[in-house]
Amino acid sequence: MHVTVWNENRHEKTNPEVRKVYPEGIHGAIEQFLQGEGRSISTAVLDEPEHGLTDDVLKKTDVLVWWGHKAHDEVEDEVVEKVHARVLEGMGLIVLHSGHFSKIFRKLMGTSCDLKWREADETERLWVVDPSHPLTEGIGEYIEIEREEMYGEHFDIPTPDELVMMSWFEGGEVFRSLCTFHRGNGRIVYFRPGHETYPTYYHKDVQRVIQNAVQWAAPNTRPRPVYGNHNDPLETIQPKGDL
Amino acid sequence: MHVTVWNENRHEKTNPEVRKVYPEGIHGAIEQFLQGEGRSISTAVLDEPEHGLTDDVLKKTDVLVWWGHKAHDEVEDEVVEKVHARVLEGMGLIVLHSGHFSKIFRKLMGTSCDLKWREADETERLWVVDPSHPLTEGIGEYIEIEREEMYGEHFDIPTPDELVMMSWFEGGEVFRSLCTFHRGNGRIVYFRPGHETYPTYYHKDVQRVIQNAVQWAAPNTRPRPVYGNHNDPLETIQPKGDL
Amino acid sequence: MHVTVWNENRHEKTNPEVRKVYPEGIHGAIEQFLQGEGRSISTAVLDEPEHGLTDDVLKKTDVLVWWGHKAHDEVEDEVVEKVHARVLEGMGLIVLHSGHFSKIFRKLMGTSCDLKWREADETERLWVVDPSHPLTEGIGEYIEIEREEMYGEHFDIPTPDELVMMSWFEGGEVFRSLCTFHRGNGRIVYFRPGHETYPTYYHKDVQRVIQNAVQWAAPNTRPRPVYGNHNDPLETIQPKGDL
Amino acid sequence: MHVTVWNENRHEKTNPEVRKVYPEGIHGAIEQFLQGEGRSISTAVLDEPEHGLTDDVLKKTDVLVWWGHKAHDEVEDEVVEKVHARVLEGMGLIVLHSGHFSKIFRKLMGTSCDLKWREADETERLWVVDPSHPLTEGIGEYIEIEREEMYGEHFDIPTPDELVMMSWFEGGEVFRSLCTFHRGNGRIVYFRPGHETYPTYYHKDVQRVIQNAVQWAAPNTRPRPVYGNHNDPLETIQPKGDL
Repeated sequence: MHVTVWNENRHEKTNPEVRKVYPEGIHGAIEQFLQGEGRSISTAVLDEPEHGLTDDVLKKTDVLVWWGHKAHDEVEDEVVEKVHARVLEGMGLIVLHSGHFSKIFRKLMGTSCDLKWREADETERLWVVDPSHPLTEGIGEYIEIEREEMYGEHFDIPTPDELVMMSWFEGGEVFRSLCTFHRGNGRIVYFRPGHETYPTYYHKDVQRVIQNAVQWAAPNTRPRPVYGNHNDPLETIQPKGDL
Repeated sequence: MHVTVWNENRHEKTNPEVRKVYPEGIHGAIEQFLQGEGRSISTAVLDEPEHGLTDDVLKKTDVLVWWGHKAHDEVEDEVVEKVHARVLEGMGLIVLHSGHFSKIFRKLMGTSCDLKWREADETERLWVVDPSHPLTEGIGEYIEIEREEMYGEHFDIPTPDELVMMSWFEGGEVFRSLCTFHRGNGRIVYFRPGHETYPTYYHKDVQRVIQNAVQWAAPNTRPRPVYGNHNDPLETIQPKGDL
Repeated sequence: MHVTVWNENRHEKTNPEVRKVYPEGIHGAIEQFLQGEGRSISTAVLDEPEHGLTDDVLKKTDVLVWWGHKAHDEVEDEVVEKVHARVLEGMGLIVLHSGHFSKIFRKLMGTSCDLKWREADETERLWVVDPSHPLTEGIGEYIEIEREEMYGEHFDIPTPDELVMMSWFEGGEVFRSLCTFHRGNGRIVYFRPGHETYPTYYHKDVQRVIQNAVQWAAPNTRPRPVYGNHNDPLETIQPKGDL
Repeated sequence: MHVTVWNENRHEKTNPEVRKVYPEGIHGAIEQFLQGEGRSISTAVLDEPEHGLTDDVLKKTDVLVWWGHKAHDEVEDEVVEKVHARVLEGMGLIVLHSGHFSKIFRKLMGTSCDLKWREADETERLWVVDPSHPLTEGIGEYIEIEREEMYGEHFDIPTPDELVMMSWFEGGEVFRSLCTFHRGNGRIVYFRPGHETYPTYYHKDVQRVIQNAVQWAAPNTRPRPVYGNHNDPLETIQPKGDL
């Protein structure tokens, strides 16, 4: 399986505080803990040509991880179209934190993907509500993150296919934090934590969920459905005479 | 539409604190705010013959509201079977608070319906996660209840058909607080708030949700599906000659 | 409640066969059976300025019915954006038959919305799989349409919030024919039947489902969620001293 | 992983036609094609003591496959309770064909699980409606079974968590044929085909779906949720002073 970790990589360049937390970039931190279990990993960032998501890269990518925040608008529509097509074709997509507002997530969801937010160093607790789900393998009843940005409902997404974790925030809000969707042949995971100024992606449980997500979202290998004019069945299925 | 409000009515008899909050019983308080909009309301309690749920009562009931807590085991299995059959036939069922552990709810869900709980006078906030849902008509972005018993995940229920509100509790938990299910032809609502020692059922927003739930769960009038041996279609549908 | 029935209205102009079936246009036929029950109805067609969907029209519309087929591409993107915004704001949307490929439905779904199809005068049977659903009020166990175009799976949509009817086709296919979705505050219904050369919209059961859908998709009146920076709760909710 | 294949094994004893199709019993046929991929398999039948489902057997079973038909009532309630408890604890359960009416499936579903049926040697086509689902790995767009018993909607089950395949029958019916549910920590699959007089369990695609199901339903290894009185969090999470 090949995983491509995409990161906007702008905060890291302009904010020393972020650079201190993620000296190799958020993509570098994620790349590191995704190593192993037979996965090959590469990274791509906004400022590369085609944002690092060339046809070749997309073609070989089984699962794409996406982190973006302040420069969603700089992602070219043409690249978004290609990523969208690849998801419908079967590529898995893991959208992290502020990626909720990325063009690709909004296009796949069909909604505004808006939410409430607050930066106030609050404790977040993510509770498992679907304990049988493979995304929760290796996780206890909840994940506690000492300090995070708050995201609160209403989160303007379609009803997830599966709601796996819900967050509690110190200031009084809740949030649907670990959700799955499928679109076409592609499997999508949204996972909330990961504000750029906190060391969230070094949290062992957060890493484990993303590792689980990458496994879960990997495409199956069956042939894709055929669409359009469909006359064949009229010939291949014959109503029985005795009916 | 006829609504029957069923209450265990035991705390009210034995606990002066509860009697002070609900001098007419919890069923009396609910009956009162359900008046109006062309509804006829009656009540039934555990200590009546057949727990007040005779064949006649069940037959005329469009929506049954259920509050129980400490005496779930005293509800006769035969009555539970009758209520279950009526729900599958189309009767709406609104299960409140500790009714999560009632025989009828557990039978309809097929799971333990267990959860975490704590009595600590905590503030509860119920956030709307499905703002288009008729159960939320007349409600703001959240309902705040100053003091309530905590219920926390994991709540061992099947995935609800619709998750409409999620609770935040001061002590660090979340809970799926307003959920819908359908079973057979019947529509079911579970709504969390309502510990017996708090004046929760006098809260205008809580009342409004229960009023909405009663409207939403009312049965439609279409004929029920027919089950079993089904030979007719073979005669009524004829494959066309040109296929 | 105000309902706007939108129709492409091109087949009616160019194909005498269609004009014979729908002399007042498909929109005219739908307008007629939606009369009553306190609804006001108007129509709009592609060739009107702004396709008849001006800001004023959209603002007053509670539920928009959409039929399109051969000219989806001629619908201006700007109008699609406005309709999309109104759905997220709460306007109901009923998408009929070949409207599955409309820009607005694809934008709301986030998928290709592709499917299999065949024109072969086949019998369609739409079976009710959710007998408690208000969309099925007044309908028997199935709707039989003597001759229709076939639509077959895989239908490339997100998993519907509710699957209410499934179609059987003579030639060997099935289809998810009556589905609900919510997006933002808006409620969406997709209903399959209605090929332009068949008198499907005169079928009493088909009419009844569309009438039910219009009622079901009407917006509620509650205030919409607020998004963005959310600092207030930090001030309004105070952790209790004794915790 | 250990799989136990449970079969009623009565038709095989009394009906020579069935014995001819399944000389080793239906359980024997299923046991055979489940061999491999590191699975250990055993079988159990109704007429063994405790129906072959002793505490030891249930304890070591990761996934239980269930086929029953004419003797559902002979399954002891005590055994049903134990199987139910094991599913909630995490054991996977694959319910086949007429197992829809088994005590264990009805108890887990909370509904009648009734349906329409007809024995008329009809062709069945099972169409994939969720092409991204691991249960469909290795399967084309549909599975065609030349002759089967018909099962038709309405199938009185709760809305499945996932609807993966839908059946088309020659006589005019449709059916939700491959469904998943989770209950507690357990993952459940219902798969329709398998009437005892047809060689359905020798069909390569049917075998593949059951193989996939066994993999999919295997329990994860995380600790189970804790229920009941929950006071600890009040001590471990401390509201911050500056809030």
